[in-house]
Amino acid sequence: MKRKITLKQIAKELDVSISTVSKALSGSKEISEDTTQKIQAFAKLYNYKPNNIALSLKNRKTKTIGIIIPEIVHHFFSTVIRGIELVANKRGYNVIVGLSNESFTKEIINMEMLANGSIDGFILSISKETLLKQDYHHFNATINQGMPIVLFDRVVNEVECDKVIVDDYKGSIKAVNKLISTGCKKIGLITTMDYVSVGRLRTQGYLEALQDNKIIADANLILKIDDSLDVEGHLDILETEIETFFKANDKIDGVFAVNELYAVTAMKVARKLGYKIPDDIQVIGFTDGVLSKHATPGLTTVSQHGQKIGEKAADLLIDRLEMEDSESAYFIEETDVNQNFKTIVIETELIERDSTK
Amino acid sequence: MKRKITLKQIAKELDVSISTVSKALSGSKEISEDTTQKIQAFAKLYNYKPNNIALSLKNRKTKTIGIIIPEIVHHFFSTVIRGIELVANKRGYNVIVGLSNESFTKEIINMEMLANGSIDGFILSISKETLLKQDYHHFNATINQGMPIVLFDRVVNEVECDKVIVDDYKGSIKAVNKLISTGCKKIGLITTMDYVSVGRLRTQGYLEALQDNKIIADANLILKIDDSLDVEGHLDILETEIETFFKANDKIDGVFAVNELYAVTAMKVARKLGYKIPDDIQVIGFTDGVLSKHATPGLTTVSQHGQKIGEKAADLLIDRLEMEDSESAYFIEETDVNQNFKTIVIETELIERDSTK
Repeated sequence: MKRKITLKQIAKELDVSISTVSKALSGSKEISEDTTQKIQAFAKLYNYKPNNIALSLKNRKTKTIGIIIPEIVHHFFSTVIRGIELVANKRGYNVIVGLSNESFTKEIINMEMLANGSIDGFILSISKETLLKQDYHHFNATINQGMPIVLFDRVVNEVECDKVIVDDYKGSIKAVNKLISTGCKKIGLITTMDYVSVGRLRTQGYLEALQDNKIIADANLILKIDDSLDVEGHLDILETEIETFFKANDKIDGVFAVNELYAVTAMKVARKLGYKIPDDIQVIGFTDGVLSKHATPGLTTVSQHGQKIGEKAADLLIDRLEMEDSESAYFIEETDVNQNFKTIVIETELIERDSTK
Repeated sequence: MKRKITLKQIAKELDVSISTVSKALSGSKEISEDTTQKIQAFAKLYNYKPNNIALSLKNRKTKTIGIIIPEIVHHFFSTVIRGIELVANKRGYNVIVGLSNESFTKEIINMEMLANGSIDGFILSISKETLLKQDYHHFNATINQGMPIVLFDRVVNEVECDKVIVDDYKGSIKAVNKLISTGCKKIGLITTMDYVSVGRLRTQGYLEALQDNKIIADANLILKIDDSLDVEGHLDILETEIETFFKANDKIDGVFAVNELYAVTAMKVARKLGYKIPDDIQVIGFTDGVLSKHATPGLTTVSQHGQKIGEKAADLLIDRLEMEDSESAYFIEETDVNQNFKTIVIETELIERDSTK
């Protein structure tokens, strides 16, 4: 068997980025004609086949779903995978997981690796770096080559495919309304940087809920955490940031945090500063993971139903794969298949525990 | 391309188990000659190649490591994967993750799927069902076909390969000695069923530490939890079991739990029963995950250094893969490569927090 060249190797040989190679091979206009020609010639010479996805799809079914998630040490993504597995197994499919580690390049490499005959379709959540770059050519190229993708949680309009999302916006409104209805006057928000779509939507929900209740938003009450902090080992920095935030807003009586780590850390800092929870300050998080369940006091939180998201995503992907099968049996044009993409919204639910009144 | 048949399909067609097919194809003596012949003939007819691992190995390097873990919603396994990724990326390898879900059959299916040309070698931790069955033919068949395996955490003597283990035994001794040195007289153990090797080793460490300190072990002070309980959704049953255990041992003043979920749940139950931690009862867990860090009070625990385990495992595997490369360049017999397997023991460390004096 002839050794097959990869995107990475082409990039290395020609001293360009993997993204450039990937774009040149999918004929993107962003890359100069010169570079595109050079890369395509090189790829041809070394037998790289950008279209082997479509070829392999026509000829065999692996009955395997490729999942790509941004992070492995993450309760939400784990529960989504559990949901995907559950449905996949029930319907006779296997799953295989690749990790982007929030990196654009690793997302491309993993997709290339898995698409190369190992899987029938993808379920994935977009990496932070990809969202920051707003470069989605690799998803579209994969879809155009005939391999379906289902996006979940972190999705974008620029990619046309089936999607499963959480009602982040409404979830936040529920949380903030709960705080307001139990008497909070000065509600802080602990969130991520804006380019992470879920953080942005949750922030919007917070602002909307305040407005609905005729409370004027105060920029000082919004703490945006740099995402590199939510890895372990940086917990001290997270604590310090939250402590500074509390000290700068001494009359704060409610906190809504966009994930459970921020929420649990906020409770810890609040206790350290002598606040009683929920008497002096109430806290609500997002994601009903182990931290929320086992926190003291138990954390009131917005449950995203990660497992249900995974189950839905798997059903959408397998439905599409099997629809393609049956449709091609009746000689219906393939382009028909790529229409009628669905976006399923999984309702959030406020799980009330002892961190609120 | 001709559609390739899988173990699963052969099993279905011939109405036998996947394990039987797998064993017959690797020539196991456990399977009758009749069945073996039938399965081998069928596999040949449908072009199943049990030896394609070795073939693919000789002809190309995927520069990809296959990881198989028993469970995805599990902090320890996630941190091991993070460690593997770190080293793999540094050394120019990618990783791909399969999940056995603690199932023997799924372990075999995943190994077959990944070994089929996608990866150069495996890093894996054995599923509970496999440990219970004590059936390791699929690991040995893979190794015999020339694909290296590194086992971590849950390992067995029956498989000869590189291994990375935690000093579970010594870790437990450290934990129980800590409880004894701070005045505990009646120390309970909350552990798993015996067939899980790590649970067994941690139990042995507990017994050894008691003996060293001339404390007579009391069977009533050992609670063995059925492993199906440590999934979410069964937390209530876990709590009830621990509550019954505490009530049956009312003078208990120390608890050592073999994982952090049991430890955190023990703290919760203890508080509910009116015990003060650490004054009335001290608690130590195993695994330094998010639960331990964010528990109230912070949980004293035995850290396994999951990330270090992953890093070591990746180094062992890549060393072996690259040794094979260079050795085959010098025409050294392949059998030489399969010798000198290493077992690396990663030292545990007692992380002291506020659940002990």
